[in-house]
Amino acid sequence: MKSVGLVAKPGHGEAVTLSRELIAWLGERGIRSALDPDLGQSLGPGDFTQLEDYPDQDLIIVLGGDGTLLRAARGVGLSNVPLLGVNLGSLGFLTAVTVDQVFDTLEMIIRGELSPEERMRLSVRVVREGRTVFESLILNDAVLNKAALARILDLSASIDGRRLTDYRADGLIVSTPTGSTAYNLSAGGPILHPSLSAMIITPICPFVLANRPLVVPGEVELTVKSSPSAEDVYLTCDGQEGFPLVPGDGVVISRTRNLWLFPSPSTDHYSILRTKLGWGVGGPGNCI
Amino acid sequence: MKSVGLVAKPGHGEAVTLSRELIAWLGERGIRSALDPDLGQSLGPGDFTQLEDYPDQDLIIVLGGDGTLLRAARGVGLSNVPLLGVNLGSLGFLTAVTVDQVFDTLEMIIRGELSPEERMRLSVRVVREGRTVFESLILNDAVLNKAALARILDLSASIDGRRLTDYRADGLIVSTPTGSTAYNLSAGGPILHPSLSAMIITPICPFVLANRPLVVPGEVELTVKSSPSAEDVYLTCDGQEGFPLVPGDGVVISRTRNLWLFPSPSTDHYSILRTKLGWGVGGPGNCI
Amino acid sequence: MKSVGLVAKPGHGEAVTLSRELIAWLGERGIRSALDPDLGQSLGPGDFTQLEDYPDQDLIIVLGGDGTLLRAARGVGLSNVPLLGVNLGSLGFLTAVTVDQVFDTLEMIIRGELSPEERMRLSVRVVREGRTVFESLILNDAVLNKAALARILDLSASIDGRRLTDYRADGLIVSTPTGSTAYNLSAGGPILHPSLSAMIITPICPFVLANRPLVVPGEVELTVKSSPSAEDVYLTCDGQEGFPLVPGDGVVISRTRNLWLFPSPSTDHYSILRTKLGWGVGGPGNCI
Amino acid sequence: MKSVGLVAKPGHGEAVTLSRELIAWLGERGIRSALDPDLGQSLGPGDFTQLEDYPDQDLIIVLGGDGTLLRAARGVGLSNVPLLGVNLGSLGFLTAVTVDQVFDTLEMIIRGELSPEERMRLSVRVVREGRTVFESLILNDAVLNKAALARILDLSASIDGRRLTDYRADGLIVSTPTGSTAYNLSAGGPILHPSLSAMIITPICPFVLANRPLVVPGEVELTVKSSPSAEDVYLTCDGQEGFPLVPGDGVVISRTRNLWLFPSPSTDHYSILRTKLGWGVGGPGNCI
Repeated sequence: MKSVGLVAKPGHGEAVTLSRELIAWLGERGIRSALDPDLGQSLGPGDFTQLEDYPDQDLIIVLGGDGTLLRAARGVGLSNVPLLGVNLGSLGFLTAVTVDQVFDTLEMIIRGELSPEERMRLSVRVVREGRTVFESLILNDAVLNKAALARILDLSASIDGRRLTDYRADGLIVSTPTGSTAYNLSAGGPILHPSLSAMIITPICPFVLANRPLVVPGEVELTVKSSPSAEDVYLTCDGQEGFPLVPGDGVVISRTRNLWLFPSPSTDHYSILRTKLGWGVGGPGNCI
Repeated sequence: MKSVGLVAKPGHGEAVTLSRELIAWLGERGIRSALDPDLGQSLGPGDFTQLEDYPDQDLIIVLGGDGTLLRAARGVGLSNVPLLGVNLGSLGFLTAVTVDQVFDTLEMIIRGELSPEERMRLSVRVVREGRTVFESLILNDAVLNKAALARILDLSASIDGRRLTDYRADGLIVSTPTGSTAYNLSAGGPILHPSLSAMIITPICPFVLANRPLVVPGEVELTVKSSPSAEDVYLTCDGQEGFPLVPGDGVVISRTRNLWLFPSPSTDHYSILRTKLGWGVGGPGNCI
Repeated sequence: MKSVGLVAKPGHGEAVTLSRELIAWLGERGIRSALDPDLGQSLGPGDFTQLEDYPDQDLIIVLGGDGTLLRAARGVGLSNVPLLGVNLGSLGFLTAVTVDQVFDTLEMIIRGELSPEERMRLSVRVVREGRTVFESLILNDAVLNKAALARILDLSASIDGRRLTDYRADGLIVSTPTGSTAYNLSAGGPILHPSLSAMIITPICPFVLANRPLVVPGEVELTVKSSPSAEDVYLTCDGQEGFPLVPGDGVVISRTRNLWLFPSPSTDHYSILRTKLGWGVGGPGNCI
Repeated sequence: MKSVGLVAKPGHGEAVTLSRELIAWLGERGIRSALDPDLGQSLGPGDFTQLEDYPDQDLIIVLGGDGTLLRAARGVGLSNVPLLGVNLGSLGFLTAVTVDQVFDTLEMIIRGELSPEERMRLSVRVVREGRTVFESLILNDAVLNKAALARILDLSASIDGRRLTDYRADGLIVSTPTGSTAYNLSAGGPILHPSLSAMIITPICPFVLANRPLVVPGEVELTVKSSPSAEDVYLTCDGQEGFPLVPGDGVVISRTRNLWLFPSPSTDHYSILRTKLGWGVGGPGNCI
């Protein structure tokens, strides 16, 4: 390992302190640090370069919450550079390592004792009159939403060129298994283990009451079109990147290269679920 | 009965034809017709006046769907003028009378053989720094929504001055029993019989999974405040009237005078539910 | 106040200790204690009589959980004797007073500073060939269930003699507002404030996907019939009293006299909801 | 193709007529027919043998609904004999071919123009004190249920030996993707495309409100144990085979060999979903 990138939630004091410690710790092991410009500015001058190209790094350490990790995942793009998510506050689904564990976890990574896990990602393209006018890479979800005053969305969905169904709803979420515990969950969608290869199609407030969340194989190509008369439809990718659609646009979603993400050495996915969702008998609250 | 107002869905051909027949039929019985300006323009000159003041009428006939009736209900305001909803297309929860039934139903109304039913309404006020800056009267629902790009809404709700809970969600619906089969239903809320006096508080895509729809007595005063840091919160009344909130605004909702609505002489509320929702064994589709 | 009944969860050590203290405390104020036979036996001989007739008491103190209170409510029958529920373990919806609060609360009751609240109850009757063959009084819910191996229940429901709908489901819950936070909630039904007058009709695992919970006025008479070919349908009242139905039986449910229940002097219903269901931002778990 | 097995819903007139036509049609092509004993008895003497061993056949034709096909799938066991489901009444998820299509479909199968699809199945074993005391093979679901009067089930689930969570519920459904549109759907579970390899774990009326359906990879080993004090827990496999559990029993569920099922030549899975669930704008009923 030669160079590690550091990305942090902007303006977070603990991130600055921890970054200094990480730079020193990595330096002692002959590993260079490359810092996210925002973070670099917060630290002032020091023994690091600016993180210009994520794919050039051997590892990206993310300090923050799931939102910060989603941003870093966009930076990594289609490269194989693995991510390590360190949560600065409450446990995250993507940032399962605590500040206490970070140095031990890095030690294990350097020694090759901890392997990154693959997380399915989706490529999202907006096709307008035959041309791709927008493209994104998502780890969590793509959401089609109505704009504020619009009452309802009319969408038609097809899979591998065959009609799936029409959705009349407030919106539509297309989620990866990793994203199943994010927006999809609050819209009533199921929880999927992140090692599955699947897309979850979950309508938001559907007008057809029998319209339930649908899980399809990750290998299909899903196309969602808004009705020709629709106005003000908005596409949001991983909750961070937005694109306004015009009538007739097609949103084409298909699987692309996986992201590599280091798990916590001490907790598994089910344990995170139990903690985050308050599961289990005798758990905290939410019990009749 | 001396004067009847006619309101129609704009640009609907059948509404124009039916209006002519209604004007003639009412005229034969010595009853004047007053037409919604839009409708009047579609008809051209004829034996009617312009509908200027809803409360001056003895009855308002609404030709269209539930949306048209909601609009007419706003026109009626706090007066006691009853409405008769005639659906021009598919059966509506508020427009249960078909075109075929309209003259027989009017005959019954004139003879006093059909009584209007009371529908609970809510007064919705936005209070900013102690002053009411917006006011509306709803038959269906008041909705607090995030604007397109905003990720989430933080709201705190209190009832009669006592804290209810905080909502972290895409939005919040406060619905009357009449509105329970509208937006509330697609957000997972329960169906309430329209004769109940109650408010339904239903979060849209709540982040707390145990946050279920709550039904409180119609007599309470519900106050919903958006968090001081919130931006771009939007209030929509009956899906028709919108108002942008600024941080710190309070939305105060309480019961006001009922609306009077004629039922269909031939169907009851449960029958409309069965038909609209495809209920019942052997019903059309939606069955496992 | 002359005589107070004491009812406790059987075999609960803290109930025995607290009962001794209550008998002494009440004795000092010239109030006799009458004990539930089970509890009396646990205490051995002492300054109390046996609780033979609940309606002869001025107050019934219930030590235990919601289940114990439901049992005491059956003992009270249609009389006006009020109940005070003291929870020995975790907070209950019906037993909101803690052991710490019990003497202060009793002091307030004796002084007339705390008033009991009314809770709607339902009368449940099974009618077979014109005769009532079973009758019960419920505070929470009446549940129609299939027996273990039976696959599905076919029920038809009518309200005041008019058809409501047919249910094809695992079962059907008819709940009071008080019972809304019990079985009804785990079956997906809404939460109703206990001061409402309403019945909630919630199917368990309905085969018609559009079959949602329905709230009707408390004043109606609801009749549920199992299909003529149905076998092994079981009626359970407040989770405690069971009755096997035979094909053709009608279950008739209608409102009866309210129960009088003392609230906690320090918490309101919304506060109990927040605690029990883990509501609220920053609450314990169950948050995405 | 030398020999075809015929299995039919008992006592179904159309099945008898269609069986005679099938025997003749197959005979003309030199293919022997072997009939389910029940069906054979209904037909009386004829040009067929008794279906004694499903795995000896080249194809099993099932005349009936999904229940009949589930029964035939049990007969096929772990062999590779493919099934063709012909629905005699309403469209089934497993019996997608209509009576009208049956001969054309058979023609296609014989010519090799239609290929069977693989459907994941699960092996379900009950382990008591280290020994397997019950074993079954499921295409749809395994259900753990409480018996009639028991109030609630306490189950603990683990995956590949690691704790998943505890369930406090009326029951628990473990479903294949094929079974996702059966009991799982009425309990609120998601719809999975049948080509996925996954198990769906869906609690029935969970007491922990945040307990949502969970989809795990088909390759895991799921173990569900009832609490040591539990009585009257019942295991039901594909809704047809039951087994009473005793406290301490473990139910071990893991993937086994796929079933081969011929699809309809004219409809795909999404089309069946649309029809069965009444999906789509303008569809029949269930629309707000």
